[in-house]
Amino acid sequence: MGSIGIVRTEYFTPDKRPWPLESGATLPEITVAYETYGKLNSAGDNAILICHALTGDAHAAGWHKETDRVPGWWDPLIGPGRTFDTDKFFVICSNVLGSCNGTTGPASLNPETGRPYAMSFPVITIRDMVHVQKALLDYLGVKHLVTVAGGSMGGMQVLEWAIHYPDYLSSAIPIATCIRLSAQTIAYNQTQREAIMLDPNWQGGEYYDSQSPEQGLALARMVGIITYKSIKAWDQKFARAFSGTKPEDYYDFAQRFEVENYLRYQGRKLVSRFDANAYLILTKAMDLHDIGYPFENYHEALSRIKVPLLSVGVSSDFLYPPYQQKEIVKALLEAGGQAVYQEVNSPYGHDGFLIEFQQQSKIIGDFLAKIA
Amino acid sequence: MGSIGIVRTEYFTPDKRPWPLESGATLPEITVAYETYGKLNSAGDNAILICHALTGDAHAAGWHKETDRVPGWWDPLIGPGRTFDTDKFFVICSNVLGSCNGTTGPASLNPETGRPYAMSFPVITIRDMVHVQKALLDYLGVKHLVTVAGGSMGGMQVLEWAIHYPDYLSSAIPIATCIRLSAQTIAYNQTQREAIMLDPNWQGGEYYDSQSPEQGLALARMVGIITYKSIKAWDQKFARAFSGTKPEDYYDFAQRFEVENYLRYQGRKLVSRFDANAYLILTKAMDLHDIGYPFENYHEALSRIKVPLLSVGVSSDFLYPPYQQKEIVKALLEAGGQAVYQEVNSPYGHDGFLIEFQQQSKIIGDFLAKIA
Repeated sequence: MGSIGIVRTEYFTPDKRPWPLESGATLPEITVAYETYGKLNSAGDNAILICHALTGDAHAAGWHKETDRVPGWWDPLIGPGRTFDTDKFFVICSNVLGSCNGTTGPASLNPETGRPYAMSFPVITIRDMVHVQKALLDYLGVKHLVTVAGGSMGGMQVLEWAIHYPDYLSSAIPIATCIRLSAQTIAYNQTQREAIMLDPNWQGGEYYDSQSPEQGLALARMVGIITYKSIKAWDQKFARAFSGTKPEDYYDFAQRFEVENYLRYQGRKLVSRFDANAYLILTKAMDLHDIGYPFENYHEALSRIKVPLLSVGVSSDFLYPPYQQKEIVKALLEAGGQAVYQEVNSPYGHDGFLIEFQQQSKIIGDFLAKIA
Repeated sequence: MGSIGIVRTEYFTPDKRPWPLESGATLPEITVAYETYGKLNSAGDNAILICHALTGDAHAAGWHKETDRVPGWWDPLIGPGRTFDTDKFFVICSNVLGSCNGTTGPASLNPETGRPYAMSFPVITIRDMVHVQKALLDYLGVKHLVTVAGGSMGGMQVLEWAIHYPDYLSSAIPIATCIRLSAQTIAYNQTQREAIMLDPNWQGGEYYDSQSPEQGLALARMVGIITYKSIKAWDQKFARAFSGTKPEDYYDFAQRFEVENYLRYQGRKLVSRFDANAYLILTKAMDLHDIGYPFENYHEALSRIKVPLLSVGVSSDFLYPPYQQKEIVKALLEAGGQAVYQEVNSPYGHDGFLIEFQQQSKIIGDFLAKIA
């Protein structure tokens, strides 16, 4: 059981130009950033696709260089002898369409204008992300997926995979996600977009030659981060720790509680690695997430799923609460499918799927062993 | 059982100048806006104080004029024959210090400069609000309070009343509130303040001669509103209703879900009646809410409370979840006090205390009858 070691991000440009989108709009061309771990067998049927969340990227496992401070975002689950065992499986993770970590998104140059798309980048959907991933898998020679797994926005991709490519996979593992985005989550996303657009540096998205809307993006991230934790996790970590040192600091408007300093730090951290327009486009794609489309009803959508599905919830998640993952199982069973719900018992809220590796390893490992 | 009818807001200016604050800072003078319903008896001991929440005001009951669309914010609980029976009780509600609805706050003129205080207004605390209310009650001739009641920030005032004026009241009714603000609620408050300060019109608070930071305040309110509801309430009200009319609207970045339109409407609505700097000062006062101060520990603070306390929670409140109201009861019982917890069963989240009048009427009515 060990790390996959040093890995690198690769790039793929599909021949299909222009690239068609669900909306009817097209992109002149697209590029996809991806990483692979392990080896594809000659039958091309030992592949596993990992799907990332809102601000994630293709770097799911391993290290880009030996001096990296942290490995890929799901590293404890991916490697030789690990849950997604790279001695057995060919594991792929790609940056989603609309993002800013190597795959085409609003910050990419539009070849037709030589300028970044900015907000001329079309609205995309989770299904658009999935179709791009399918093109990548075809290019890599993958004939069949053992499973598709991912949390949050990654879990939305997993569900669309199971519905739109039902014969291409043997199982699906959506985690901390939902059949359709709830009104509350749309509301949270909206406030995050409005924070970005309130920043005077946003300028309708045309900031690539000037100062970027760092404060707006940082504020968006701060709101997001609150929703990724839980009230008890925050209290365990910070309670009412205060950063002032003198007694009078307590009554100084500019002084802050440590939880505020932490949030500001997290906000700034995202700014250094993420594009504000991509944040707008991806949260909008999440808002549009609704597996019912374009079917008559959910039953019709779900009855397309032919493989066992493992739905995983995090007990303290209040953004995508466990009832939403149970809803997936209930609806799928009603549609004649096979599904099971498992819960990660954690105080960490939605972030649990990026923290609770031991529990997920057990739950996912047992599921994969059973379906093998 | 009826409405108290037409009422009006009155104003009181204490003789004490300058007015001292907990921080050691002072205000040159203060004015307090208040309303009263019913009549004070000759012993001055039939009074009830009602405390309002963050964006509330002194207008708790009745109508300012016959054409008003809505009555005061807690009207169904206050009036002849109602829970807070104005045939028996003299009910008082005042706008809190630091607000903008008649009581001195950041938008008030500083008599020393002839200009609005803006952000030179000192940081205040919930205890400062309570001491101002005590001066008002003294002025009105109130010798003793039958009870003090309020929800959210109003409930914080109730707790401080019970601790700092233990001989002045016969009972206390804190609703949907907490002993000390949690790290998560501080975090939510912080993002709301940052939204205001991100608005270029905020200008460090010096906007009274120019455009006010309407977008920032609206965004702050939007984040706040999300936390006042519940995930199920949002889904019941809006689900995924979309405001676009043409099929292609679904893929238009500018088109919105109805929940987004509702939030924007609520944001704009607050802007028309609230001052952005007051929002900053009051959320900061909430952040500082901690009944432990200036005592050695919570036990010492709570052991000062000599009267029966009714702590009311709302089942679906995730901003001040029921466990926080149960915590009040548990801690008070441990300190030798008398306390009981009652829960309002509601899908409306924190807002439940402004919506679920029938349940609150029963719970509060039974409590008042018992202690009478």
